[in-house]
Amino acid sequence: MNGAESLVRTLVASGVDTCFANPGTSEMHFVAALDRVAGMRCVLGLFEGVVSGAADGYARMTDKPAATLLHLGPGLGNALANLHNARKANTPVVNIVGDHATHHRRYDAPLTSDVEGVARPMSSWVKTSMDARSVARDGAEAVAASLAGAGGVATLILPADTAWNESDGPAAPVPVAARPKVSDDALREAVSALRSGEPTLILVGGRAQRARTMELASRIAETCGARVLGPTSNARIERGAGRPRLDRIFYVVGRALEQLSDIRRVVLVGTLEPVAFFAYPGKPSLVLPPECQVHAFAKPEDDILDALERLADAVGATATSPLIQPLSRPDLPSGAITPETIGAVVGALLPENAIVVDESINAGRGVYPATIGAPAHDWLQLTGGSIGIGLPLATGAAVACPDRPVVALQADGSGMYTLQALWTQARENLNVTTIIFSNRAYASLETELHNVGATNPGRTALDMLDLSRPDLDWVKLAEGMGVEAARADTVEKLIDLFGQSVKRPGPFLIEVPC
Amino acid sequence: MNGAESLVRTLVASGVDTCFANPGTSEMHFVAALDRVAGMRCVLGLFEGVVSGAADGYARMTDKPAATLLHLGPGLGNALANLHNARKANTPVVNIVGDHATHHRRYDAPLTSDVEGVARPMSSWVKTSMDARSVARDGAEAVAASLAGAGGVATLILPADTAWNESDGPAAPVPVAARPKVSDDALREAVSALRSGEPTLILVGGRAQRARTMELASRIAETCGARVLGPTSNARIERGAGRPRLDRIFYVVGRALEQLSDIRRVVLVGTLEPVAFFAYPGKPSLVLPPECQVHAFAKPEDDILDALERLADAVGATATSPLIQPLSRPDLPSGAITPETIGAVVGALLPENAIVVDESINAGRGVYPATIGAPAHDWLQLTGGSIGIGLPLATGAAVACPDRPVVALQADGSGMYTLQALWTQARENLNVTTIIFSNRAYASLETELHNVGATNPGRTALDMLDLSRPDLDWVKLAEGMGVEAARADTVEKLIDLFGQSVKRPGPFLIEVPC
Repeated sequence: MNGAESLVRTLVASGVDTCFANPGTSEMHFVAALDRVAGMRCVLGLFEGVVSGAADGYARMTDKPAATLLHLGPGLGNALANLHNARKANTPVVNIVGDHATHHRRYDAPLTSDVEGVARPMSSWVKTSMDARSVARDGAEAVAASLAGAGGVATLILPADTAWNESDGPAAPVPVAARPKVSDDALREAVSALRSGEPTLILVGGRAQRARTMELASRIAETCGARVLGPTSNARIERGAGRPRLDRIFYVVGRALEQLSDIRRVVLVGTLEPVAFFAYPGKPSLVLPPECQVHAFAKPEDDILDALERLADAVGATATSPLIQPLSRPDLPSGAITPETIGAVVGALLPENAIVVDESINAGRGVYPATIGAPAHDWLQLTGGSIGIGLPLATGAAVACPDRPVVALQADGSGMYTLQALWTQARENLNVTTIIFSNRAYASLETELHNVGATNPGRTALDMLDLSRPDLDWVKLAEGMGVEAARADTVEKLIDLFGQSVKRPGPFLIEVPC
Repeated sequence: MNGAESLVRTLVASGVDTCFANPGTSEMHFVAALDRVAGMRCVLGLFEGVVSGAADGYARMTDKPAATLLHLGPGLGNALANLHNARKANTPVVNIVGDHATHHRRYDAPLTSDVEGVARPMSSWVKTSMDARSVARDGAEAVAASLAGAGGVATLILPADTAWNESDGPAAPVPVAARPKVSDDALREAVSALRSGEPTLILVGGRAQRARTMELASRIAETCGARVLGPTSNARIERGAGRPRLDRIFYVVGRALEQLSDIRRVVLVGTLEPVAFFAYPGKPSLVLPPECQVHAFAKPEDDILDALERLADAVGATATSPLIQPLSRPDLPSGAITPETIGAVVGALLPENAIVVDESINAGRGVYPATIGAPAHDWLQLTGGSIGIGLPLATGAAVACPDRPVVALQADGSGMYTLQALWTQARENLNVTTIIFSNRAYASLETELHNVGATNPGRTALDMLDLSRPDLDWVKLAEGMGVEAARADTVEKLIDLFGQSVKRPGPFLIEVPC
């Protein structure tokens, strides 16, 4: 058995059953081994940003890593932007990156580069296998590393000869340490904050945004008179009817400052202290009031469920009912296409158990509030601000959950970064309905240009934010990659197309001029 | 004047007149400054790989750097693959990368990452400006750094507050040291090799591939009975009728070994010792015979023209005529579409002074030989093996040379990495005719799978090399980005479409099933 096969067998034994791949010559032995090993599904992406974003979406839905298969430094480079998002989401990902054979690395061949250097900024664990007999063990360590702490990106670099040379066979899975319990001191501090009588916020992020943990947070908040909010950017929120409602800290700094102005205590659960997305001239980086005390109760890597159970118990909230969102859909709208009417269509028609992937940036701002009372669903967001995650994330979520409808809310500008994901959706016949918010602009930048103080922009500046001339035709782009698509110029057409698409299998794209 | 404006003015004063941009919030002041400063053309790309590849194409044609404008670590990450190619081509590029304001960098905001860490693997020079008064000087240094040595990638990181705070105004250009002359010792060694009586190869790469330097190399070779070849991957070859013919070292290791088997001396001019693109089990990394002596006569960063003039003089070649390729076009073909008939169409119809960008990988192998005697043209290639450069490179070359027709020979698989470049071609109305070699496969990998010894591949492995299911429709993809396109199912149709397109302004794409 060669090194590549020993690695594939080890990954499968360690619970990795899906590999998103964009392989090259150095990865051919890994690819060939897939036919000799049962239990690994391999999904091709036509660009590495699709691969890494899909791995993120897969793991957000399964809580276990997918593997990626990438080709040397440049292939990993193309994956970096979405690995950045995965890192900020604390998503476990195992990158397998081929490199030149160990004896070839000393030469300046065209594809030679510092692969570890490319990996490091977006990885919590990086290792290069030095021979075929180490590959299996290194692979098992990579899986464990991706699951360590709060979850992270582990990158294993595989020189080609470690793949083709003879190995000692697969390695046993490496055990992952249990998530640490929060200390009794932290618990006492949180109780004291909640009983301080001061306006208190429970900020729930990461793993605390699952239905069960949010119910506990809601019980605690109801008992102690506290508020509950989530951060601006979130990996996965379980929400909708039958679950607690979770509002988020506003993206716009001025609005966030106002939203949090009365807060004097914050209990952090599964997240860190909130900071502004960007700095602006004359505005603070921290959005909490300066006089607010911050209590880091449960860190992202802690056992969040245990922490909240103990906190609920300590404040006597166990018997308190959580605030549960009733089923409440908006009426089907009519009239012009606006962020509000698009939101109403999605809110009225979103199927039960859907997965919503939101990279709609400005244009989709009507959808989150309009789906508060929709049937229970998951909400996945851009976490690291690196646009171009939406279509890949939806792809990976659909691979992870083949029986659930996936709805991708996609801004046109960010969609263009990784539009190749549509091809994978077609090839794998994934149940993804994509709504393209086609405003033909980097609309968020029009606001940001003003926010940073660059006033009275001229033609050249405005051209850099303008995606018209020529207009993108997303129907043709989707069809060019084998995905059926149509344009919804009216709300009625959107109702018709969206209502049909979420009920039928396979991908569909709806371009909505807005 | 704020820091951003001081930088733009400095870049213009330093000779940088073109900026390929994909900006975000942190870059808004730079963008706004463009309207206040004359002399900088700003070209928008919808993905950063387009931006970096276009900057490479621009500089290959002008011998001076373009700027790129990129958004924090992830934006730079998306640019890395084509920066890798630029680095291997010794192309000068000046990256301007926005980062969070200095006071915001200490927080773990969503877009925070180690930007310098992302830059380093593909840059020869990296610096972060620490305040607005340093930005102009740092920008002038970045331009000089990109032109230092053989040319390279300089990355200047610009925290947002260095852009918006008050500066001291623009900085003067930083002088670039002249290219060093080769030593008299190196000259004597080369003369001795050429007069050794042993079979000698003059390997010309980089700046030695211009018509004038190749004429000198040809004179020297004719005088001394030596051969002339180029490396496998080349940044820019001036070739065609009226110029010396340049054959290249074969990509396939077995063929390269055979091609070079009789060589006992190699005189390197503007390039390093040739190595195999990849390592393969049981095959050598070095393609020259072990008994061959290598003479590093002129390094890539040396004054190549001076070196060849002195060498020609020293061996008495000044009066020798170079071997000049006469005008010789193939006849217009008929029959089935094959690599050979596609090559004949391009060879028969390539207009004078064209720029050919070749990322056709396997499928376009017929074009290089068929254009040997076409009217004088430039030939630009993938230099670093990082696929996805073709469409951006053609875009940048067309921006650099608006009066020259550009022909992009593009494999379908590699074209998909950076297809967004087509939109920029449409927006800027660039004279680019793209031929998509639509074989619906990573065809090169089918060969490579065999070459690395992964025999008898199964369905899963073959699926990873297969781009059908669904078929890509490049006509729709192009039209979706505003580029006119058509499919050529017959040689006659290809003749018609290609012949028309190269004569008219603006972009056009021809999908050729092959």
